[in-house]
Amino acid sequence: MPDYNKLSKEKLRAELKRVDEAYDRFKQMGLKLDMSRGKPGTDQLSVSNGLLDAITSRDWDDDNNHSLRYLNYGLLTGIDECKEIFADLLQVPQKNIIVCGNSSLNMMFDYITQCMLTGSDGTPWSHQGEIKFICPSPGYDRHFAICEYYGIQMIPVDMTDTGPDMDAVEAIIRDPQVKGMFCVPKYSNPTGVTYSHETVDRIAAMEPAAKDFRIIWDNAYIVHDLTSKGDRLDNIFDALHRYGHDDMVIEFTSTSKISFPGAGVAALAASDRNIEIIKSRMKYQTIGYDKLNQYRHVKFYKNVEGLKNFMRLHRNILQPKFKIVLYEFEEELRDCNIAQWTHPRGGYFISLDVMRGTAKRVCQLCKEAGVTLTPAGATYPYGYDPADQNLRIAPSYPPVDELLSATKLLCLCVRKAALEKLLEE
Amino acid sequence: MPDYNKLSKEKLRAELKRVDEAYDRFKQMGLKLDMSRGKPGTDQLSVSNGLLDAITSRDWDDDNNHSLRYLNYGLLTGIDECKEIFADLLQVPQKNIIVCGNSSLNMMFDYITQCMLTGSDGTPWSHQGEIKFICPSPGYDRHFAICEYYGIQMIPVDMTDTGPDMDAVEAIIRDPQVKGMFCVPKYSNPTGVTYSHETVDRIAAMEPAAKDFRIIWDNAYIVHDLTSKGDRLDNIFDALHRYGHDDMVIEFTSTSKISFPGAGVAALAASDRNIEIIKSRMKYQTIGYDKLNQYRHVKFYKNVEGLKNFMRLHRNILQPKFKIVLYEFEEELRDCNIAQWTHPRGGYFISLDVMRGTAKRVCQLCKEAGVTLTPAGATYPYGYDPADQNLRIAPSYPPVDELLSATKLLCLCVRKAALEKLLEE
Repeated sequence: MPDYNKLSKEKLRAELKRVDEAYDRFKQMGLKLDMSRGKPGTDQLSVSNGLLDAITSRDWDDDNNHSLRYLNYGLLTGIDECKEIFADLLQVPQKNIIVCGNSSLNMMFDYITQCMLTGSDGTPWSHQGEIKFICPSPGYDRHFAICEYYGIQMIPVDMTDTGPDMDAVEAIIRDPQVKGMFCVPKYSNPTGVTYSHETVDRIAAMEPAAKDFRIIWDNAYIVHDLTSKGDRLDNIFDALHRYGHDDMVIEFTSTSKISFPGAGVAALAASDRNIEIIKSRMKYQTIGYDKLNQYRHVKFYKNVEGLKNFMRLHRNILQPKFKIVLYEFEEELRDCNIAQWTHPRGGYFISLDVMRGTAKRVCQLCKEAGVTLTPAGATYPYGYDPADQNLRIAPSYPPVDELLSATKLLCLCVRKAALEKLLEE
Repeated sequence: MPDYNKLSKEKLRAELKRVDEAYDRFKQMGLKLDMSRGKPGTDQLSVSNGLLDAITSRDWDDDNNHSLRYLNYGLLTGIDECKEIFADLLQVPQKNIIVCGNSSLNMMFDYITQCMLTGSDGTPWSHQGEIKFICPSPGYDRHFAICEYYGIQMIPVDMTDTGPDMDAVEAIIRDPQVKGMFCVPKYSNPTGVTYSHETVDRIAAMEPAAKDFRIIWDNAYIVHDLTSKGDRLDNIFDALHRYGHDDMVIEFTSTSKISFPGAGVAALAASDRNIEIIKSRMKYQTIGYDKLNQYRHVKFYKNVEGLKNFMRLHRNILQPKFKIVLYEFEEELRDCNIAQWTHPRGGYFISLDVMRGTAKRVCQLCKEAGVTLTPAGATYPYGYDPADQNLRIAPSYPPVDELLSATKLLCLCVRKAALEKLLEE
C-alpha cells in the first residue's frame, strides 16, 4: 500500500475508488457491531460464573460462614474481609479503605458532589466562584461529564508517554481556582500509558495554590495487564507521604472488569483525614452498601492472589482481541502513513489517531456501515478534540470473528476519510 | 398496680423501693439486647433464604434466562421486569418507576442533594438562603438527619391519628422558604398511623408558596401489615392528578424489610417531569445499578403477588413479637397510668409515650441494665423532644424470649423513672 501523503491527485482518486468499492461491500453485509465502550465480552463474563454460586441458602446451616451476619443493616464502610482484599490490592492499610456498592464512578460522583456542597476540607467548592479541574487528554469521558454537570471548567493537559504533561500541570495549579485533577494512572483510558515513577513523584510533590485541591486517582485498570509482566505503577500514597501531602489524593477502583460490570464491588482509599470526611457524609447518605455482594466476592476470590489469578483468565481472552486489532492496523494502515496508534500493555483501549480533521468523518462512515465507535471528541473535555483526530477503540466486547470484520471496516473508513481529505486540499 | 398519680409520697417511696429491687435483679442478669432499630430478626431473614439461590451459574446454559444479559453495563433506570413489580406495588405506570441499588435512604439523600445543588425544578435550593422542611413528629430520625446535614431548617408538625396536623401544614407552606416535607404515609415511623383519605387529599391539594416544593413520600411499609386486612392508603399520584399537582411528590420504597436489609432493591416513583430531572442527574452519577440483584429479586418473587405472599410469612413472625410487647405494656403500665402507647396495624414500631420529662431517664436506665433503645428525642427534629416523653420501640430484632425480658425491663424502667419524677415534685 502506498504512502497516501506522496500520491498525486490522480492516484488518490484511483485509490479512493478502490476503497469506496470495498466500503460498499461492507455496507451490504449489514453489520451491527459495537466497539464503543470498554465492556467485557460474554466470554469474559463466564470467567466469573462461579461468583453466582459463592453464597447459597445452604450457607445458612454452616456455623462458620458469615453470610447471615451480613444480611442486616450496618457496617457503613464495608465488611472487613472485603476491605482486606482492596487494602492488599491498593497496598494501603485496611483502615484507609471504604468499600461501597457496584460503581466506582458513582463514588467519584458522590465525592465531587460532597466537595461542591460541603467542601473537600474547607469552604464548599460551589461557594468559590468558577472552579476548574485539570483533565489530562485524551481521557475518560465519564470523568469529564461529572465536571460538565457541575459547571467545573475543564483545563485539558496533554497526555505524554509517561503521564500528563507535568510542566503544564505545575503551571496550572498556581491558580487557586484549580481545585483538582482526574487521573487514570495505570493503563490510562484511552492511551494505555502507565504514569512513570517521575510523574507519580512530581504529582505527589505538587503544591497547588488551592489548599483544598484533590486528585481523583481512578485506578480502574490496576490489575488489568495484557502482558505477563505488567506495568509497575508507584504507590501514590507512599509518594504523597514523602512530601507530607497525604490528603491530596483519593484513589478509586472496582471489580467491574474483574467480576461483573454493574454487579461488582467498588472501593476507595484515602488518608485518615479524608476517610473521616467521607464517612461524615456517608453516615447521612445510607445505612450501608450491599454487604452480601461484598461477601460474595470475598468467598469467590478468597484473597488478592485469588483475584489476580482470575485476571490471567481475562488476559487470555483479551490478548488475542487486542492483537487482532493491532495486526489489522499494521496491515491496513501502516504503509499509508495516515494514522498512529498505541500498543497498550494493559487496560481496555487502543487510542487511534487518524489523519487530522477526519475523526468525526471516520465515526460517521463506521456508523453508516453498522459499527458503533465511541463518538469522536468524547475523549476530550466538552467532547471537543481540537485536532479532530483521536478515536478510542474498545476491542473487548465483540467476539473474535466480529471484531475482525469491524476492524477491517474501521481501517477502510480511516483510509477513505484520509483520501477524501487529501483530495479536498 | 396502683395509679401512680394518686399515691402519697410515702407510698411512692415504697413502690420505688420494690421497683428498684426488681431493677437490680435485672441488672445482675447481664442482658445485652437491642430494641433500637427496625431490624428484621434472624427468623425473618430466613424467610428470604431462597433469594440466594435465585440466580446460579447453571443459568448460563438456559437460553430463556436473562441473567447473562444483566451482567454488563447499561440500563440506567433498572430492568423492566423489576420496574414492573414496583409499578404494580405502587400502582403507577412502569415509565414512572426508577429502580436503583440497595437503599431507598440513599436515593432520598441523592434526591435532596440534587435539589440543593441543581434545584428540584428551578433555582438550586442552596442558592435560596435558609430553606425549611416540614417534619411530622415524631418521625424517622434518618430523614431528619439529611435535613440537619444540609442545614435545612426543620419545622416539626404534630402527628395525629390520621396523619400530620394538616391545619398546621397548610399554614406553614405559605412561607416560600419551605421547600418540602417528609412523610411516611403508611404505618408511619414510629406512630404506625396510616394517612387517612382526607389527609392524602389535603396533601395533594396543597398550593405551597414555593413552586419548587417537594414531598418525600417514603412508603417504606407499603405491604408491611401486622393484621390480615391491613390499612388502605390512597394512591398519592391519583390524588395529585386530581389537582394537577403531579410533580409535587417523589415516592420511595424498597425491599429492605421484604427480602434483606442492605441487600435488597430500592425504587422511586415520580411524574414524567421528575423522572426526567432525576435521570438527568443519574446519567452522570453512574453507568447503572446492580441489575443482577434486581433480576435476582424478579426471579425469586416472580411478581407483586409473589412478593405479597412473602409478607404473610413476615407477619406470622412479627405479629407475636408485637403482641408480647403490647401485652406487657398492658400488664405492667396500664394501671399505673403513666404512659400511652400505639397499637400499630403494620410497620416496625410501637411508639411509647412515657411520663413527661422521663424519656431520657428511661433510656439511660435501660442502657445501664443492658437493653439498647433508640435514644430519647431521636424521633424529633434535632433530636429534641420538647416533652421528653416519646420512645420508639422496635420489637422485630430480638428473639421472642429475649424480647420478653427486654420488655419487662423497659416497663420497670418506665415505672422507676416516673416514680423518681413524682417524688421530685
